Amino acid sequence: MNSINLRKLSSILDLSISTVSKALRDSHEISAETKKRVLEVARAHNYQPNIYASSLRKSKSKTIGVIVPRIENNFFISAIDGIHKIAREHNYHVLIYLSHESAIYEKDLAESLSNGRVDGLLISLSKETESLQYIENFLARNIPVVFFDRIGDLSQCSSVTTNDYESSYRATEHLIASGCTKIAHCKISQNISIGQLRFSGFQAAVRSHNLKENFSHVIECTDEYESDYLRIKTLLKSRARPDGIFTAIESYALIVYEVCTELCIKIPEQLKVVTFSNLRTADLLNPSLTTITQPAFEMGETAALQLIAAIEKPGYFKPEHIVINSQLTQRRSTERI
Amino acid sequence: MNSINLRKLSSILDLSISTVSKALRDSHEISAETKKRVLEVARAHNYQPNIYASSLRKSKSKTIGVIVPRIENNFFISAIDGIHKIAREHNYHVLIYLSHESAIYEKDLAESLSNGRVDGLLISLSKETESLQYIENFLARNIPVVFFDRIGDLSQCSSVTTNDYESSYRATEHLIASGCTKIAHCKISQNISIGQLRFSGFQAAVRSHNLKENFSHVIECTDEYESDYLRIKTLLKSRARPDGIFTAIESYALIVYEVCTELCIKIPEQLKVVTFSNLRTADLLNPSLTTITQPAFEMGETAALQLIAAIEKPGYFKPEHIVINSQLTQRRSTERI
Repeated sequence: MNSINLRKLSSILDLSISTVSKALRDSHEISAETKKRVLEVARAHNYQPNIYASSLRKSKSKTIGVIVPRIENNFFISAIDGIHKIAREHNYHVLIYLSHESAIYEKDLAESLSNGRVDGLLISLSKETESLQYIENFLARNIPVVFFDRIGDLSQCSSVTTNDYESSYRATEHLIASGCTKIAHCKISQNISIGQLRFSGFQAAVRSHNLKENFSHVIECTDEYESDYLRIKTLLKSRARPDGIFTAIESYALIVYEVCTELCIKIPEQLKVVTFSNLRTADLLNPSLTTITQPAFEMGETAALQLIAAIEKPGYFKPEHIVINSQLTQRRSTERI
Repeated sequence: MNSINLRKLSSILDLSISTVSKALRDSHEISAETKKRVLEVARAHNYQPNIYASSLRKSKSKTIGVIVPRIENNFFISAIDGIHKIAREHNYHVLIYLSHESAIYEKDLAESLSNGRVDGLLISLSKETESLQYIENFLARNIPVVFFDRIGDLSQCSSVTTNDYESSYRATEHLIASGCTKIAHCKISQNISIGQLRFSGFQAAVRSHNLKENFSHVIECTDEYESDYLRIKTLLKSRARPDGIFTAIESYALIVYEVCTELCIKIPEQLKVVTFSNLRTADLLNPSLTTITQPAFEMGETAALQLIAAIEKPGYFKPEHIVINSQLTQRRSTERI
């Protein structure tokens, strides 16, 4: 590699490395004349200071790390957009990493970021994550961490969520109000904070309306398309077929639509469907899909603001647990017939 | 900041910094006994070597940078998934950056990566990008760059695209075969490589079938939802309303669907629609949407493989221009009535 570095620059200029370095950083110790000469030669050789070396000196990378479990999900895409907006306003770079729902990979990613590459971390946990030891290591280095959506229980960290329990309760009540009496639920992993809350909200609504609880109507999906498809098909082919279904994330609702097409089950006549979703095409589906829309963009913005406050004013920052409410949007898929 | 560093560690151990550093790197110059002692103390103090300092020494970050113009687009999401798959297989980290279609921001991002933070760059250009000088600076530092989808004209770089021209020709012919005679096209910026190709393919098909060219039927969308909505609404309200429309990217087709709902225009009876798209819900829309599906995942994989080859075998690597064909999937939106 034939690129220019500080050493070569200093030899060309016949100055000490320290002098060249100070001149490039506009130090008051160096004369204006020398600075000018150094800059001219540096430009002529297309020299740029090594970002890693600069980071060592300044100890701030002006970079935020973001770890999300997946990207093929409109919630995370909008949340990342919100994070980007705030980061740009505050002159931070954003590094986006995917954990692919793997606890080991998430830990590896976080550890590779914990040595000065980022000033702070925004994270939505993978479904496998149990130990938060690696987050504590992060905090021990005075690098703040903020959770969003799928959060961990650490008092030193801010977290930003939506009202998962209440929204699930409301979605289930909406199905009941539309005439459903046999309501199914497609859960996500109970390992995730939102998995538990969404299931509990569903369960509470079913109980408070004195509906019969049918355990075969509650299925846990895995995020592998083939097996989720089979699971949902089995549910919808059963003799005790549900007349309403509430799915915890949008990809399950899309599978419900596909299975209904295959089995010639009419939505909403024979089955009503509601889901958590930030799907852009909810209005355009056949039939249009009733959704609980999370404030994904605002959640991203809020999490980024919390993190930047923690980075820039460590002495004044107090962790907060912020809840931003979701909206139920009624469409054709839950229409009362 | 109270964290442990090499200097503090060496003072605790009463050894020189150089000895501690060598011991941590398992140097043959240091005795097994000293190494053991250093490691024990380092572990006890939760010491991790600074990643930037390590990068300086090893001069490889094992990291790939990816710059895409936007993320709320299923093509880029699938392409990123393909990149991730290959990166994981080859033990590379992936940093994802969004240029938000801004040439200045793209250049800033690239420059911040050109000092050793990444070993190579995968990029799909913003619609504003004209000068590729900053890419040439990248190459001058022996950091390889591979273009995908929206490519630049640099002979030193590999590029991965789909057959944009032929696919657009075929989509337009498909509308003609379905009975359309007045075909509109929603272009993307002609600044982008694919914008030109997709428009040219459309134009060539219209001409070769001796259809009348109607310039008011070709509109350039801007990616601002409100103004694109208005533009498409104006097109579909005009007296010389088209009977078929081919859109260059999926978000325009979704707006066409929305406008048709508002104006009570029936798809496919009154207007047939075909679009480039990797939309997961194309099958479930009302009506299901005919798409030209790009091999997004494979394009990501291929681009990543090219880049890793260029990074790891610089002497043997020859840039290639790889084209992977798209598929036309016929659905209800172009059905002949």
